[in-house]
Amino acid sequence: MQSFPTRADIEAAAERISGQVHRTPVMTCSTLDRLAQCRLFFKCENFQKVGAFKFRGASNAVLSLSGREAARGVATHSSGNHAQALALAASLRGIPAHIVMPSNAPAVKRSAVEGYGAHIIDCEPTLQAREETLDVVLQDTGATFIHPYNDQRIIAGQATAARELLDEISDPDVVITPVGGGGLLSGTALAVRYYSPQSAVLGAEPAGADDAMRSLRAGHIIPSENPRTIADGLLTSLGDKTFPIIRTYVRDILTVEDDAIIHAMRLVWERMNIIIEPSAAVPLAAVLEHRRDFAGKRVGIILSGGNLDLNVLPWSDND
Amino acid sequence: MQSFPTRADIEAAAERISGQVHRTPVMTCSTLDRLAQCRLFFKCENFQKVGAFKFRGASNAVLSLSGREAARGVATHSSGNHAQALALAASLRGIPAHIVMPSNAPAVKRSAVEGYGAHIIDCEPTLQAREETLDVVLQDTGATFIHPYNDQRIIAGQATAARELLDEISDPDVVITPVGGGGLLSGTALAVRYYSPQSAVLGAEPAGADDAMRSLRAGHIIPSENPRTIADGLLTSLGDKTFPIIRTYVRDILTVEDDAIIHAMRLVWERMNIIIEPSAAVPLAAVLEHRRDFAGKRVGIILSGGNLDLNVLPWSDND
Repeated sequence: MQSFPTRADIEAAAERISGQVHRTPVMTCSTLDRLAQCRLFFKCENFQKVGAFKFRGASNAVLSLSGREAARGVATHSSGNHAQALALAASLRGIPAHIVMPSNAPAVKRSAVEGYGAHIIDCEPTLQAREETLDVVLQDTGATFIHPYNDQRIIAGQATAARELLDEISDPDVVITPVGGGGLLSGTALAVRYYSPQSAVLGAEPAGADDAMRSLRAGHIIPSENPRTIADGLLTSLGDKTFPIIRTYVRDILTVEDDAIIHAMRLVWERMNIIIEPSAAVPLAAVLEHRRDFAGKRVGIILSGGNLDLNVLPWSDND
Repeated sequence: MQSFPTRADIEAAAERISGQVHRTPVMTCSTLDRLAQCRLFFKCENFQKVGAFKFRGASNAVLSLSGREAARGVATHSSGNHAQALALAASLRGIPAHIVMPSNAPAVKRSAVEGYGAHIIDCEPTLQAREETLDVVLQDTGATFIHPYNDQRIIAGQATAARELLDEISDPDVVITPVGGGGLLSGTALAVRYYSPQSAVLGAEPAGADDAMRSLRAGHIIPSENPRTIADGLLTSLGDKTFPIIRTYVRDILTVEDDAIIHAMRLVWERMNIIIEPSAAVPLAAVLEHRRDFAGKRVGIILSGGNLDLNVLPWSDND
């Protein structure tokens, strides 16, 4: 049996990243509490640097490198929040970051990554091209590959969000996070296990990308195939480092349709006046959909991020 | 010479409303600091109840009423944030609120006010019709008129936002707020006078509604005539309670074009992941426009509110 990141690993991560990661606020909203008929505590990782919890894991991974490793830089393939997070973490340590990006990635994402001083390498928009291109980069540069989620340092880093949440609110009945590759969910599950073992941990997933729910039911990883959802941070498959933790410590994974995700996202924008991306709205959508199961409970929700294109809001065509 | 609300008045207001008003956070953003080349401290009244600082003044006014006055309720004419603020403050005290609203007010604003249990009275969309209708309501009900800004209790209530800001950040060089009728600006000016007298106070105003700037220059109130701006919370004229305070304690009023307001609003949305309404973006727009005057300074900004129609964002047609 492989070993999971320990309580000491999470505490070391928290210590390591404390100088450069925001301690984000926990917000509440009486209107949403009324709607959901429970008490909601939102850990606002949309206010984290680069606008997402991903900066925690990337910071922990980069700061865990030896001086010799660090000097050769880090590399990854991503067009999402992990790319920006790794680029910033590398820049703060003063080391190179090589980001393999599909050639069809939005210009705004490319320029954000470039803005942090990272080196972008284009590739065809297929998983195979990404991986092959990354291999070439790793060979050429000697950089360390930092996977977006299937990495113990990343998981321990993401766990620090729930650790802070549990430091501020005692004894939630449930903590719920979105699940894509499982870095946030597995880290959260470990933090809850270590700091609030009587609380349940749930994942929330788009119905159009429900591979994590199906994997949990099946007892083995079922890859994500042709996912279709507006929650574009949650398209990936679980990994062999995240799945065993989820299987051991996560009670269930709830799925919600895109309509419910958009509705929940709009509620947060309107009622809390904060901006979250669709992926971050999935847990609230799940709570509202399963209202009876949460009634009267104290529910911690990790708002995972707030990065999206403000020119194309999902309700422009829907409402 | 009329007397201004005193330090004791502001402290009494803070005490009076403390049970029902949020102590809103002060946020910072390193990206915006870099852009503006100064240190910005945002007092987030967009997170206040009803989404705007207006709830402070309305709460103070309602809670200042004697039991006998309160029993007859409160009334005002407004289709904006003051209407919602007064409706909620009245509802929390369990007294009636009568809100005179122009018949062309957006349905979403009407239903928000109704949602707080207030009684809406329709009128023609002219100032004369509003005032006449309000007079009838006051005669019929014996309710107390709570003006949106030209009222010492309102001014003392709005002052509590700056008081909290100054409690958290010491010695800002400047504190800057939007100015419409002047309730927030005059309250802020008094709070700064009492708690941080070495700090300067500035107002910020849309160029298309620059009556406060012109009034300050002229030394007497110049009414707002045919204002044209996206900052729809800043259309009104100064009042005889707010103007003398502004004239005495406000160093200057800066004006900005709507393009700059929209740009500043979008920066806050994108970089801070929080939602502010156009009126709330006016001070940041002014700071960015007058960058050289603010360079290297510590600048407190009151983000006045976050209420707007998410279906029609100002950059849909602009960007």
